[in-house]
Amino acid sequence: MTDDDNVAIARRFWGAVQARDWELAGAQLHDDVEFFWPNTGERYVGRDNVIGMNRAYPEGWTIELKRTVTDGDLVVTEVRVPHETLGVSWAASFFEIRDGRIARAVEYWIDEGQPAPDWRAPFRAAP
Amino acid sequence: MTDDDNVAIARRFWGAVQARDWELAGAQLHDDVEFFWPNTGERYVGRDNVIGMNRAYPEGWTIELKRTVTDGDLVVTEVRVPHETLGVSWAASFFEIRDGRIARAVEYWIDEGQPAPDWRAPFRAAP
Repeated sequence: MTDDDNVAIARRFWGAVQARDWELAGAQLHDDVEFFWPNTGERYVGRDNVIGMNRAYPEGWTIELKRTVTDGDLVVTEVRVPHETLGVSWAASFFEIRDGRIARAVEYWIDEGQPAPDWRAPFRAAP
Repeated sequence: MTDDDNVAIARRFWGAVQARDWELAGAQLHDDVEFFWPNTGERYVGRDNVIGMNRAYPEGWTIELKRTVTDGDLVVTEVRVPHETLGVSWAASFFEIRDGRIARAVEYWIDEGQPAPDWRAPFRAAP
């Protein structure tokens, strides 16, 4: 698999999630895929659980794929996810590709609008 | 600049931050560098502000560089940052390199130990 093949898998995954095409999204994942979110320690193991959790996510979201960076079997994507009621989230996802499917993902999900501590204010640019 | 050159700049930056070698860290940054954190909307512009903010960060932290992914002028790093009193944070940093220095960084910082919503529990692996 080339870098182009590997990034295509990640792009296809996000495109299928955005299209709510859960069969196509699942086809990009290994049976025993693992998704891990370090902020909450949540771990989703197996295609059915990963897809089930994505299907169950409260509706109103849009996936905007902003950038990809690929080096061999490791593909990083940056997505912006505006939601009709829940505000705007972003994720940096590290996808480990094996034999044409996603074997593991570590995702750094953040929500916009978090408070910033005062001690950094002297260095900060005006909003 | 090759991918190897570009990733070396990001590695040198993190190594210098860990060493509290602020001169070396600053030397990896353009004069008008911008660091942006989407979670809080914080923006630090200019070498002095970026380095000043890093210097002022409450002590007790260690930078562990876990993975890098590089594609041309874009370098992504994944760091784990345990802190003696503040818990463990992680960051996915997207460094845009120009002419041998960091021109812009977008960083997804998360803290471990955040709560996970109940609706996802049916799909979640045991901790």
